[in-house]
Amino acid sequence: MPVEGRPRWQKGESYRVPLPVEGRPRWQKGEIAGTSIGRECHEVIMNAVTFNKENVNSFHHAVSSEIVTAQCFGLLPVLGITAPNAASLRFRWCSFRTMFSIFMLLGAGLNTCFAVVIMQSGISFKQSDGVVFFGTVTVTYMLFLQLARQWPNLAVEWENLEISQKHYGYPRRLRLKIMIVTTVVLTGALVEHALSKSSQIAVAAACTDNVTDMFHHYFTKTGTYNQIFAVMDYSFATATLALINNFIATFTWNFTDLFIILVSLALTERFRLFNEYLVSFRGKVLPGSFWAQIREEYNSLSHLTRTLDSCISKIVLVSFGSNLYFICRQLLNSLSPLGGIINTVYFCWSFGFVLFRTVTLSLYAASIYDESLKPKRVLYDVPPESYHLEVSRFLNQIVTDTVALSGMNFFYITRTLLLTVSALHLTLSTAV
Amino acid sequence: MPVEGRPRWQKGESYRVPLPVEGRPRWQKGEIAGTSIGRECHEVIMNAVTFNKENVNSFHHAVSSEIVTAQCFGLLPVLGITAPNAASLRFRWCSFRTMFSIFMLLGAGLNTCFAVVIMQSGISFKQSDGVVFFGTVTVTYMLFLQLARQWPNLAVEWENLEISQKHYGYPRRLRLKIMIVTTVVLTGALVEHALSKSSQIAVAAACTDNVTDMFHHYFTKTGTYNQIFAVMDYSFATATLALINNFIATFTWNFTDLFIILVSLALTERFRLFNEYLVSFRGKVLPGSFWAQIREEYNSLSHLTRTLDSCISKIVLVSFGSNLYFICRQLLNSLSPLGGIINTVYFCWSFGFVLFRTVTLSLYAASIYDESLKPKRVLYDVPPESYHLEVSRFLNQIVTDTVALSGMNFFYITRTLLLTVSALHLTLSTAV
Amino acid sequence: MPVEGRPRWQKGESYRVPLPVEGRPRWQKGEIAGTSIGRECHEVIMNAVTFNKENVNSFHHAVSSEIVTAQCFGLLPVLGITAPNAASLRFRWCSFRTMFSIFMLLGAGLNTCFAVVIMQSGISFKQSDGVVFFGTVTVTYMLFLQLARQWPNLAVEWENLEISQKHYGYPRRLRLKIMIVTTVVLTGALVEHALSKSSQIAVAAACTDNVTDMFHHYFTKTGTYNQIFAVMDYSFATATLALINNFIATFTWNFTDLFIILVSLALTERFRLFNEYLVSFRGKVLPGSFWAQIREEYNSLSHLTRTLDSCISKIVLVSFGSNLYFICRQLLNSLSPLGGIINTVYFCWSFGFVLFRTVTLSLYAASIYDESLKPKRVLYDVPPESYHLEVSRFLNQIVTDTVALSGMNFFYITRTLLLTVSALHLTLSTAV
Amino acid sequence: MPVEGRPRWQKGESYRVPLPVEGRPRWQKGEIAGTSIGRECHEVIMNAVTFNKENVNSFHHAVSSEIVTAQCFGLLPVLGITAPNAASLRFRWCSFRTMFSIFMLLGAGLNTCFAVVIMQSGISFKQSDGVVFFGTVTVTYMLFLQLARQWPNLAVEWENLEISQKHYGYPRRLRLKIMIVTTVVLTGALVEHALSKSSQIAVAAACTDNVTDMFHHYFTKTGTYNQIFAVMDYSFATATLALINNFIATFTWNFTDLFIILVSLALTERFRLFNEYLVSFRGKVLPGSFWAQIREEYNSLSHLTRTLDSCISKIVLVSFGSNLYFICRQLLNSLSPLGGIINTVYFCWSFGFVLFRTVTLSLYAASIYDESLKPKRVLYDVPPESYHLEVSRFLNQIVTDTVALSGMNFFYITRTLLLTVSALHLTLSTAV
Repeated sequence: MPVEGRPRWQKGESYRVPLPVEGRPRWQKGEIAGTSIGRECHEVIMNAVTFNKENVNSFHHAVSSEIVTAQCFGLLPVLGITAPNAASLRFRWCSFRTMFSIFMLLGAGLNTCFAVVIMQSGISFKQSDGVVFFGTVTVTYMLFLQLARQWPNLAVEWENLEISQKHYGYPRRLRLKIMIVTTVVLTGALVEHALSKSSQIAVAAACTDNVTDMFHHYFTKTGTYNQIFAVMDYSFATATLALINNFIATFTWNFTDLFIILVSLALTERFRLFNEYLVSFRGKVLPGSFWAQIREEYNSLSHLTRTLDSCISKIVLVSFGSNLYFICRQLLNSLSPLGGIINTVYFCWSFGFVLFRTVTLSLYAASIYDESLKPKRVLYDVPPESYHLEVSRFLNQIVTDTVALSGMNFFYITRTLLLTVSALHLTLSTAV
Repeated sequence: MPVEGRPRWQKGESYRVPLPVEGRPRWQKGEIAGTSIGRECHEVIMNAVTFNKENVNSFHHAVSSEIVTAQCFGLLPVLGITAPNAASLRFRWCSFRTMFSIFMLLGAGLNTCFAVVIMQSGISFKQSDGVVFFGTVTVTYMLFLQLARQWPNLAVEWENLEISQKHYGYPRRLRLKIMIVTTVVLTGALVEHALSKSSQIAVAAACTDNVTDMFHHYFTKTGTYNQIFAVMDYSFATATLALINNFIATFTWNFTDLFIILVSLALTERFRLFNEYLVSFRGKVLPGSFWAQIREEYNSLSHLTRTLDSCISKIVLVSFGSNLYFICRQLLNSLSPLGGIINTVYFCWSFGFVLFRTVTLSLYAASIYDESLKPKRVLYDVPPESYHLEVSRFLNQIVTDTVALSGMNFFYITRTLLLTVSALHLTLSTAV
Repeated sequence: MPVEGRPRWQKGESYRVPLPVEGRPRWQKGEIAGTSIGRECHEVIMNAVTFNKENVNSFHHAVSSEIVTAQCFGLLPVLGITAPNAASLRFRWCSFRTMFSIFMLLGAGLNTCFAVVIMQSGISFKQSDGVVFFGTVTVTYMLFLQLARQWPNLAVEWENLEISQKHYGYPRRLRLKIMIVTTVVLTGALVEHALSKSSQIAVAAACTDNVTDMFHHYFTKTGTYNQIFAVMDYSFATATLALINNFIATFTWNFTDLFIILVSLALTERFRLFNEYLVSFRGKVLPGSFWAQIREEYNSLSHLTRTLDSCISKIVLVSFGSNLYFICRQLLNSLSPLGGIINTVYFCWSFGFVLFRTVTLSLYAASIYDESLKPKRVLYDVPPESYHLEVSRFLNQIVTDTVALSGMNFFYITRTLLLTVSALHLTLSTAV
Repeated sequence: MPVEGRPRWQKGESYRVPLPVEGRPRWQKGEIAGTSIGRECHEVIMNAVTFNKENVNSFHHAVSSEIVTAQCFGLLPVLGITAPNAASLRFRWCSFRTMFSIFMLLGAGLNTCFAVVIMQSGISFKQSDGVVFFGTVTVTYMLFLQLARQWPNLAVEWENLEISQKHYGYPRRLRLKIMIVTTVVLTGALVEHALSKSSQIAVAAACTDNVTDMFHHYFTKTGTYNQIFAVMDYSFATATLALINNFIATFTWNFTDLFIILVSLALTERFRLFNEYLVSFRGKVLPGSFWAQIREEYNSLSHLTRTLDSCISKIVLVSFGSNLYFICRQLLNSLSPLGGIINTVYFCWSFGFVLFRTVTLSLYAASIYDESLKPKRVLYDVPPESYHLEVSRFLNQIVTDTVALSGMNFFYITRTLLLTVSALHLTLSTAV
């Protein structure tokens, strides 16, 4: 082992002091000079970071508009989303947003209770749908409330990582990608919601000839509001409330998946930046200190993944569970005959969209794991002269650590998981 | 390796009881003196340990009251449970407790035979329940008898570990936690037992109008005692015996799961103490001898897990098997219509409780494995200057060794197992 | 490191062409000169390689006739397949072959549309067959078009590897083996195609007594062309077109599997050459530089596998998916009674052949993985005196890297996969 | 790393020369002196090995009587089974045993053909039983013939290992254990065979009142000989032949499993000897040369396992496949009502016995894997002063190499496999 190389960088006590750039003439000096900014002094630096053009692609800014949208529906009630940096983020119990969020949570909870009440008068799969749907939404509100309390810390850790790895720059067009994904998913959800309403109104219209009766019938019988009107009387006010209620619940249900996709995308992009940088050193002779540095940067990324996972793993579990349930339901529905074009279109779109959302979610989340494994290949190409203890540590860390999002550690989201779940679906659907 | 770096850190950075530095010279002296405070001389040291306040949370004392309860039902017949230290524990074949235990075992065995006899007159699932239930109880009695013989050694090994790792202290509020878990599980079991009796008496009451007839009918037809009264005549004495018998069997069945939960909890707490201590050194520059010491302490914990596993892995297998069977049974029951409120409440509680118990058991047992992996993350954060052969050995050991409870090595209890078993349940229940 | 030990072994222990020892000094000189014979200067070297007898077994030449055959059906439209070396390979959008390929793709796409149209008039499994079959063929055409663009780079990388590892020679009889496999698979496919037509004509003959009517009936009702004649009128020209169309689609469907088998075979043979060479050094004392060299050669092979995988992993996924579908279909078919001898023979052959193809494909592809693990065993036999950091790196690489073909990283093709898929089939077929 | 320790043993060119015993004063000199006998000189030594008392437990002698028994039924036709050492073993095509074996193979093949013929006249599960049963037996004969050719090499490799590891002694009571297992399995098989005949004769007796008619009926209708008498006429000679034929086939079917159990047992015992020896050094300070030596001995055991696996892995695959089939069949049988006591007893015994055999086989074979992992634990206990590169290599080898019997590399026989197969059985049986 290159013990003789050691004195060069044992001089400074801490290993976070600037790299001995003078000791590495083989590559361009300025290239990784930015890395000398460690975690310790970020407090000072952060204030100096101004909202410049690059920052648009920082995590805090890239997801801000999506979070603002979510807040309109009572999700993730944190203050300071539009502030120039993550350090301004705050969670307060006695803020308007939190109050609104709790109000929405109570509303969803009430709906779940209604659905449970109606289910008792006769168990059927249709009613159990209502319980699962509103139950999921209620739990989602709770989990996002919990996440809101952890969000400031998470965003600050992420921002610090971005600053300490500023020499990689910010992911290119991250904000744009996030906006495109958001648009696609929310539009799909909107279409599905509209088709759902249309098909239910069509059924109601077939039963009656009067428009008022039709709406009455729609709200109390064919719509997904029957759990409300089984308990309350029908009136224009309650109907409107039910409509809004249902719209919000649908948004929340879709936003859960979207949210996981977005943070996965943002994290994957950071891993990609890291990998691109690393690949540029493929096969070159580099000092041990370089590998020590690069391993610690990987370690920071892996820390961030772990923090993120600890924040959202419950949401991931709920999301996978509900998607599994609704895909099974749709498969069951597909066995009964479909009447009318609207119904057929609705069924196809609804089934296709839930599949699309689940697969997209899985692939985006799995890409974190895929990217986290890629440095391995560069390490295999390290020439023997340049092989160093830290290279072996790096490889060891990649291989022994699972850097991925998980569902409360019950499963890690990888491509293999998607295959396993598909096989399970196939088995369940043929057995049913 | 930077042994010269040691003084820097020995001066009192750690907030816990300083490591027995004066005890360190043994590294240079003896061969394996590092563990000499461990197994070799424990006989001497143990007498010096007095029943002080901390000791309440030692394993031996924390589980003592639960074991005494179990002994009232003939389980785990060891002597000296209430003694001040584990060295006083003894197993004797010719003690009253052992005799009582064997008596209970024979009783359970007799019940199983009755259940087999009654089953021959016509196989049905209801009767196979009796065979499985009493068979499980009989096997449980045998396994606890076997465990009683190994218990003294296990408790002594555990106590020695507690003494040799005294600088970590004892788990905070271990005894309290154990009591809470015990209360929750046993109360749930009691409610289930009561509901079961109520629902059966309700059926009996519906058939007759006379109270005596009702009890007669209850014991010989609707109760779970029919295996007895198919062989013996009905009398007040036999009825009382059958009642007690059934109560004891139910307790035993529930205690098996509880027992696994308790020892898992106690062991997890020890791993947590270790991890908390280790985390306090995250990122610091430490000498190799520190890592050697810490690795050996981890190794002791892993040894203890292995010893515990070898003692209880058969009980774990029986517990998982019977829970799997009864969950499948309840799923099958759920297909047939439920009559009456008592029946519905009983079914829901019974199903919910067996699910709760199984999931709780799995999660508590899996937490050993989860905790055993956590030191990994501290090792990734070891700075390059402090990296030492022993750090690499430690990481290697964590990664290559599976420190977890197992079902006779057929499976290790991890969170993934819970998921796999759920998928199996799902498949089986849709297929049936 | 025991570099001084080198002369002992260079004196001619090896029975193969001695390693290019004169090329070795580059280790000390350049940065990554070890691979400099590899990618950097291949442009120059390649022209010097003449079409000598050995070259017949080089990858480029061994698969050339199969690719030419495929090009007759519009697959893999690259130019320069018969050129003396891989550097002459080119892909051009505006070449005749590419145009032909796109024409075939459009034809297959049209057929899929026809099949979708006919399916809408009533969903049945028979019609869904048509959609899946022509859908698969269409996607296959697209994927081969995409592959054609990557083929020149792949072939050049492969040729460079062959040149840089020229001391291993070329795989013995590779071209012969490839021709045998091709003949077996294509003959089997031809027999199946003929039997399929015969059984359909037999059904048509049973319905009518006139020969013209019979053909008319065959094309419009019993044949697999009904999707065409549901849209177009029947005429001699369209019937002929339909026949050719169907023949080409069947060829394409079979060629996909064959193609994966062929490249797997060729790659496996390269791993075998490497392993044979390595085994000849089993247990010998060798210098570290030898191990560095051998590890880099293994690394090149693993690089090539990765490149190949990135090129064909989509094709692999489509192939596995369609085989899974058609085996399930045949299992379902086997439940309905078979009428007549021709039908029985056709069913048996068809089912047997799809099984044979799938298993053969899996085994050939899995053999890459099997061979990639074999060097491990030689490394365990390295004597302690000869143990070197590079040996440990080599072992580490073998163990931590999965060198195998994959289905878009969803699964790696190993023997275990075949077993898992069989278990899934078994479960699905008993459940249905 | 103890580079200074190296010159001591670099003196001899080969690492197989006697260990520098004088360099290891810390443990008794004679203790492992026997290990100096390497593989190179076994040719000479072998002749010196006389048939002494210890040798009774050597592999060659321990399994000899079982192999002789097998040869009576035409299995494993090697010459020299009773010779004093394995070097006398020979396989010859033109020996009586081989001829007899081929004769039996042809007989079994003929039976399979008969069974296929009869099945064509109407497919039913009962007939498919005959095809699977005789097909399995035929394939088994072929595989044992193939094994006979490899047996001499295998036995010699095993004997050499025993000689080179003579300091461990021979497994205690190996021959006795083998005889006990053989007796238990063959007795169970005999009882099953007798019960099978009894139940079939009972059915025949119920149909007729004449004894001759009864036998006639038995042989042509109710027995498992119908495939013969569907082709040939019934006569006393053919009936006797059919009886013998069936008996031999049943023996062969059972012997396959027994054989795998026996070799697994013998190999496990060798691993146990090794582990016992290794455990006696737990926690001691030992030189690197000791670890090099012990690792090579482990390596030899792992080599032997690999050789054994390559010889019998096909037999293992056939055995697992046929057991899987017959357990599924019995589960299906259990659904149809059982008539009469003999039938019930036969069914219970038959089902219980096939389960017992499969589980025993799995557990014995899995114990090789279990034992191969045990040295790991001793290596974790190696004190830091004694830690050596070879210790790390040893641990690495244990962890990265799978030392177990396999079914043609499709699966390795471990305890987990048994669980997986059980889950598959459960799923299949509930789905059917």
